[in-house]
Amino acid sequence: MLDSSVITKLGVKTVARFYKKRTETLRKHPGEMVYIGNNLKNESKIDKITYTPEKMTGRIHSLVDETTNFPETEEISWINIEGVSDVKSMKILKNRFNLNSLIIADIMNTGTRPKYQSLENNLFFSLKMLRYDQEKERILSEQLSIIVFKNTLVTFQEVPGDVFDPIRENLMMKDSKIRSEKIGYLIHSILDCLVDNYISILQLLAERIEDMEELLLDHPDETVMEKLISSKKDLLYLVKSIRPAREAFKQLINEKPTEIRNYMHYFNDLFSNITHVYETVELYKELTTEQMNTYNSYMNNRLNDIMRFLTVFSVIFLPLTLVAGIYGTNFEFIPELHLRFGYLYFWIIMLTLAGLMIYIFKKKKWM
Amino acid sequence: MLDSSVITKLGVKTVARFYKKRTETLRKHPGEMVYIGNNLKNESKIDKITYTPEKMTGRIHSLVDETTNFPETEEISWINIEGVSDVKSMKILKNRFNLNSLIIADIMNTGTRPKYQSLENNLFFSLKMLRYDQEKERILSEQLSIIVFKNTLVTFQEVPGDVFDPIRENLMMKDSKIRSEKIGYLIHSILDCLVDNYISILQLLAERIEDMEELLLDHPDETVMEKLISSKKDLLYLVKSIRPAREAFKQLINEKPTEIRNYMHYFNDLFSNITHVYETVELYKELTTEQMNTYNSYMNNRLNDIMRFLTVFSVIFLPLTLVAGIYGTNFEFIPELHLRFGYLYFWIIMLTLAGLMIYIFKKKKWM
Amino acid sequence: MLDSSVITKLGVKTVARFYKKRTETLRKHPGEMVYIGNNLKNESKIDKITYTPEKMTGRIHSLVDETTNFPETEEISWINIEGVSDVKSMKILKNRFNLNSLIIADIMNTGTRPKYQSLENNLFFSLKMLRYDQEKERILSEQLSIIVFKNTLVTFQEVPGDVFDPIRENLMMKDSKIRSEKIGYLIHSILDCLVDNYISILQLLAERIEDMEELLLDHPDETVMEKLISSKKDLLYLVKSIRPAREAFKQLINEKPTEIRNYMHYFNDLFSNITHVYETVELYKELTTEQMNTYNSYMNNRLNDIMRFLTVFSVIFLPLTLVAGIYGTNFEFIPELHLRFGYLYFWIIMLTLAGLMIYIFKKKKWM
Amino acid sequence: MLDSSVITKLGVKTVARFYKKRTETLRKHPGEMVYIGNNLKNESKIDKITYTPEKMTGRIHSLVDETTNFPETEEISWINIEGVSDVKSMKILKNRFNLNSLIIADIMNTGTRPKYQSLENNLFFSLKMLRYDQEKERILSEQLSIIVFKNTLVTFQEVPGDVFDPIRENLMMKDSKIRSEKIGYLIHSILDCLVDNYISILQLLAERIEDMEELLLDHPDETVMEKLISSKKDLLYLVKSIRPAREAFKQLINEKPTEIRNYMHYFNDLFSNITHVYETVELYKELTTEQMNTYNSYMNNRLNDIMRFLTVFSVIFLPLTLVAGIYGTNFEFIPELHLRFGYLYFWIIMLTLAGLMIYIFKKKKWM
Amino acid sequence: MLDSSVITKLGVKTVARFYKKRTETLRKHPGEMVYIGNNLKNESKIDKITYTPEKMTGRIHSLVDETTNFPETEEISWINIEGVSDVKSMKILKNRFNLNSLIIADIMNTGTRPKYQSLENNLFFSLKMLRYDQEKERILSEQLSIIVFKNTLVTFQEVPGDVFDPIRENLMMKDSKIRSEKIGYLIHSILDCLVDNYISILQLLAERIEDMEELLLDHPDETVMEKLISSKKDLLYLVKSIRPAREAFKQLINEKPTEIRNYMHYFNDLFSNITHVYETVELYKELTTEQMNTYNSYMNNRLNDIMRFLTVFSVIFLPLTLVAGIYGTNFEFIPELHLRFGYLYFWIIMLTLAGLMIYIFKKKKWM
Repeated sequence: MLDSSVITKLGVKTVARFYKKRTETLRKHPGEMVYIGNNLKNESKIDKITYTPEKMTGRIHSLVDETTNFPETEEISWINIEGVSDVKSMKILKNRFNLNSLIIADIMNTGTRPKYQSLENNLFFSLKMLRYDQEKERILSEQLSIIVFKNTLVTFQEVPGDVFDPIRENLMMKDSKIRSEKIGYLIHSILDCLVDNYISILQLLAERIEDMEELLLDHPDETVMEKLISSKKDLLYLVKSIRPAREAFKQLINEKPTEIRNYMHYFNDLFSNITHVYETVELYKELTTEQMNTYNSYMNNRLNDIMRFLTVFSVIFLPLTLVAGIYGTNFEFIPELHLRFGYLYFWIIMLTLAGLMIYIFKKKKWM
Repeated sequence: MLDSSVITKLGVKTVARFYKKRTETLRKHPGEMVYIGNNLKNESKIDKITYTPEKMTGRIHSLVDETTNFPETEEISWINIEGVSDVKSMKILKNRFNLNSLIIADIMNTGTRPKYQSLENNLFFSLKMLRYDQEKERILSEQLSIIVFKNTLVTFQEVPGDVFDPIRENLMMKDSKIRSEKIGYLIHSILDCLVDNYISILQLLAERIEDMEELLLDHPDETVMEKLISSKKDLLYLVKSIRPAREAFKQLINEKPTEIRNYMHYFNDLFSNITHVYETVELYKELTTEQMNTYNSYMNNRLNDIMRFLTVFSVIFLPLTLVAGIYGTNFEFIPELHLRFGYLYFWIIMLTLAGLMIYIFKKKKWM
Repeated sequence: MLDSSVITKLGVKTVARFYKKRTETLRKHPGEMVYIGNNLKNESKIDKITYTPEKMTGRIHSLVDETTNFPETEEISWINIEGVSDVKSMKILKNRFNLNSLIIADIMNTGTRPKYQSLENNLFFSLKMLRYDQEKERILSEQLSIIVFKNTLVTFQEVPGDVFDPIRENLMMKDSKIRSEKIGYLIHSILDCLVDNYISILQLLAERIEDMEELLLDHPDETVMEKLISSKKDLLYLVKSIRPAREAFKQLINEKPTEIRNYMHYFNDLFSNITHVYETVELYKELTTEQMNTYNSYMNNRLNDIMRFLTVFSVIFLPLTLVAGIYGTNFEFIPELHLRFGYLYFWIIMLTLAGLMIYIFKKKKWM
Repeated sequence: MLDSSVITKLGVKTVARFYKKRTETLRKHPGEMVYIGNNLKNESKIDKITYTPEKMTGRIHSLVDETTNFPETEEISWINIEGVSDVKSMKILKNRFNLNSLIIADIMNTGTRPKYQSLENNLFFSLKMLRYDQEKERILSEQLSIIVFKNTLVTFQEVPGDVFDPIRENLMMKDSKIRSEKIGYLIHSILDCLVDNYISILQLLAERIEDMEELLLDHPDETVMEKLISSKKDLLYLVKSIRPAREAFKQLINEKPTEIRNYMHYFNDLFSNITHVYETVELYKELTTEQMNTYNSYMNNRLNDIMRFLTVFSVIFLPLTLVAGIYGTNFEFIPELHLRFGYLYFWIIMLTLAGLMIYIFKKKKWM
Repeated sequence: MLDSSVITKLGVKTVARFYKKRTETLRKHPGEMVYIGNNLKNESKIDKITYTPEKMTGRIHSLVDETTNFPETEEISWINIEGVSDVKSMKILKNRFNLNSLIIADIMNTGTRPKYQSLENNLFFSLKMLRYDQEKERILSEQLSIIVFKNTLVTFQEVPGDVFDPIRENLMMKDSKIRSEKIGYLIHSILDCLVDNYISILQLLAERIEDMEELLLDHPDETVMEKLISSKKDLLYLVKSIRPAREAFKQLINEKPTEIRNYMHYFNDLFSNITHVYETVELYKELTTEQMNTYNSYMNNRLNDIMRFLTVFSVIFLPLTLVAGIYGTNFEFIPELHLRFGYLYFWIIMLTLAGLMIYIFKKKKWM
């Protein structure tokens, strides 16, 4: 389960929101092992699940040290590693798994673009796992690297907590499909959970955007635009994780490595799902743009209303004030002033003028 | 026929408008049977029509139970199933039709992206059937899944009522083309009805958008923008159903499965039609954008008019009020006040000033 | 020649402007013969021109009836049919030409998307012929269907009058190139006339748009925006006819059917021309968008001017009015009132204040 | 060199700016010889340069008449023809060069879309040569048609003066590379000069656009928008010449006709250059759009400033005027009027009020 | 390291920002050696590093003269040349390296579009190295040309200082990977440093853009728009360098020249990195557009506030002033004036009126 306690750790990223900070750690030379991320100084921990249709064994949360070893077996193993910032641990893992130095660099640079690479005898995925920080209303991203060797699948995560608990539960059940299938099915399960993760993030955003709708029809205030922009930025961020992931899945399906060849239907389905998510994100981007238009249009309407109000008021009072001013002049001979009902006539004139103005404005539909 | 009584049932979706709600039911594991939709707790019902050029038999609205059976025959059968939310019924159907667990998941997840898949010995389509809720002025969508086995075509719908009555009528007529053709022609007929469904929805929208035109030339009020945005959202929603459907048809035509190989002209025609619909939707999107521009431009014009009016009025009355104010001062020696025709001169000055102002504004075309 | 008397007939379309009305006549079943258009109840009339390099014979305006016959000959024939709404006539033609029921449906549905199809032994084009209604300033569209059998070319039009008179004139001249060439050259001539038709419509629009330019630099009034939007809509409509036609030509060139194989240079040239038209329409769309920007910018400038004017005026008169007001108060001891030249000083102060204000505004470049 | 005296001749085009006028001269029939352009009634003139590595001969400005002849030689010839409007001359040239009637039509229709065609035994280019009319600040375009036969290259221009003087100078120099190379190098030189022509036009526009930048930061007036729109239109016009030319070059490189096969590096370089120009034009289009945004934003800011100014002023004077008005009333018992220092207090109140207002506005940062 | 002292030299470019000035130096003829850039009159200097796994020798900053020689060896050499403006030096280098005249022209024209070309026996890259001028907040660009012969890699730079120091440091270390690898690894290292250079520039821009965010939420002033436009222009400029570079890398990967065939993983990684940078730039462009929208929306809100303020104030004071005006008239018989508590009543009316207005505005939420 996605643990909210680690959100604050991931939350440290500020500039890193769209691009993880590299200024201090710009790779001196390709292949050198440098961690690029949020200075999370945690040692790598290992979970290992081994299973056959008959039995399943799990070893949890051991630290990586010199004795760490992964003997090759006929059983399917899923090794999950939490924490990629500790260079010493990563060096050990690099040797144990016999990893290419570029691969290890991609794992440790948590700003890698989502991608898929098939190497000589393994498959490599670099993807993003997303969390939604409810409080600050923004998306946090954690890098998930996946390597597949013959019967072993290794996942690398940045911090504790992930979206794979349903898989673990299934692995524990004796009759589950996953226990009786090959490693290709495990790969699919993991990628499928990830797409579901994208869907649930998208749904949070979607609800936020659709709630905005009502706010826009009611009296929207100045914070609406901020919220709209914030939604749009989250959608842009989502696209940034999903689009390359979709490309990676496409490439995987085209290459059809032996591991997945028996599960093509599953992977095609996966691709169709991520495409759906991608298109829905694009649609919400368009919707957000429309909402901005609505808001701007609302503001214009409102300005129109205010100005009309001011105009109507000014135009009614200006002539009246003038008339009052005229009879306030001190000319010696102002015949009207000495009429018997002068003051009455004056009021009659005033009220007639006001009435006329109001009539005109009513006709002009300004009132 | 599309029955309006079910509209309210489909109308429950709110967030689900663009993305059906999955939060509660996020697929625990791929392949598990979970209904994702609007909690319509109806058991599945079956209609079955079997026909040869000579005779046609139909069985209607039986419930799905353990005795449900579909013996394979030489005749062409069209089995229509209403309701995909009841897990028990769906399990029975899964077994009877020997369906892949991914297919059944796609059928039961009513938010699946429209698609076409050719499996080992059957064809699978997931498409959308649309309804227009006149009252709330919005589009409702129902998922239609189609599976084709040798001589049997199965359709899965969410609620009662569909757009296929013309086909049923044709099937009842002895000399109709459909009775004398193979299953490929039935597939075409069903897809063709669906495209006609899109066309009729599009026409409703088109009329609404074109009616707006007149409203825009007359005095548009503040609700116009809302209506425009609502039209645009409906068009976006339409695109979301039509674009992937068009892709699916394209894929079908490229793959040319044996079932349809004799009817390629029909399917090419179908593809041309859906392309036409798709392009027309895009065109209406552009038109709606232009209408928004017109409206904004109208609002700007109006603001200009109001401000001009206020300005003209203020500028005429300000000097007059000043003049009146001057002769209202209590200076001891104001020679003008004691002139014989002072008050008359005063009026002459006032009227001249006003006339001059009006003349200037007329020349500036502000009046 | 394009006869203006039929414009009113075509002009009936309102909703049909972008999408011909189908609500009443939604194809009950594919292949059924239903006319979809503007209820023009005219029987079909036939013109037939037969020619060899040596001689040319023409038969004009005969009605379609049971005796209508088209014996196959070695000569090249061009049969032109006016009116596609009469189901009886169309049935006869369907049988005489042995037409596919989909083709006849495409001919009778006057809202078909422009396309090209090569069938077993004939070529089929569905295209649009455009007219410009000068009075209402909008484009009217008529469907032109073309079928080519071995030596016979058949054209179907909705109403009398077309753009092919130059071809007819050429056919009448003994030494003309067209008389000595095969049917491919006739196809080219007809398509070429159509592209010229698009060019002349485009030129009318282009002139209208360029005339707008001057209007925009002069004092544009509120109708300008309407005109701009109307131009844009016409351009969108033009694109809707031209883009699919261009696709159709592309497809024709790629397929290279035997009929046109000797005339590829002509068809490549045709494609280059229609591409040119298409790009020019796109360019004019961009220009119209720029004109809208200009207009909006003009309106903003104007609002700025008005507000500046109001501000300057108000700001000059407000202090003066205040001063006048102050010396209109009835305090017992206002020393200034009793000065000998109090009133003179008052005027001096007033004029100085006004002068100062004007000076400040001049410096601020507000005047 | 581009001669400014002919600018006025080309300058006649008004509607023709983006689309050369064809209304009067709409091609009656394909292949017929009709000049479509600016009614420049000049007879065609011929320049001919023949060269080998050893010698070079030139014949200049002879008129085209019946005696005009082009014997085929081993030497490389460059024949340049000025003026394509005279039908008689063009007929002679058509026969001498044995030109296809479509080619001659393309040469004489000066609104042809830039293109490349490889015919049986020659290559044909239709391109645009641009001039910049400094005075009216707009781009004029002249059509350049190029035909290559074995050892002969023919160029057709509309008016005297071109951009090929550097080539002529090189041809006159005995040791120049061009003299020792095949005709492919001559083709390259001519196209290269044309691309350089585009670059220099682009630079003129670029400078104009970058000069605008400063204007925008200073107090921009109402003419700025016009200038921006005019720049954008010029860029659109440039694109209209460059994009199809780029496509033509691409096609040339893909076809690799024998004439240019030894010079592929040169042509690849050419393509890279024209791509660079094309991308730079697109970039400037984006920049111009940004400048429009800046200008609109400036206008908005300015409106804000004006309104703030008006508001501040009104809000300060309105209460003061009211106070003065109150003490101008003629009530019998207004105690303040009879206070000893009433008038002084009055002034104190007035100044306090004014000071308070100013303080509030300062705090609100409105002043 | 990027030396800030040379910034001023590069800073001379003004028009050249997006397109280096060529007006004076327009290539007279292809292949001729002309320097196109910022008139930096510096002679070319040479650094040469030669290395094997065992030893490394370097010769630094010698001038190019007739004695300059590059004997071919088995060792890998990296020759770095600073300064490409001196025609004499460049002529020597052209001869020593036996360079194609087009290549030398591309090197000396510092406005060449980034590209990759594989020639007979060498590879050629033209790329951009970027610097950020902190003071003027703009990007400066320096051309980097790379040529690879068998065992020799030559780089050409415009001015001293580059981004390759990490490579030099690695070359000096005996056990470094680079020392034990072939020339392909050196190519990769250089391109990798370049991409890192783009990343660091992007990060500077990214921080500037994200800092803007806060400014936008606070009270943004008129300079914000300028800054936003300036950021956008920098992003456009970045795209202009990165997009063609990405294309060049793509082409390199597709061609797989022998030199790099053993290092495909490295180059694929490189391509993935530059794609990431490219997409991030595009994303920041979208973000900047959103920021502009925010700013404009803020300005509109502000205008609304100001107008509302003015309206509220005017509407409260206009009636009060009128009332005061009425009782300032000099009619003989105004009964109110002679009431005992007339003045008191007057005040009560005034305050009631004011209170009523305020109440209405509070209800309308205008206050």
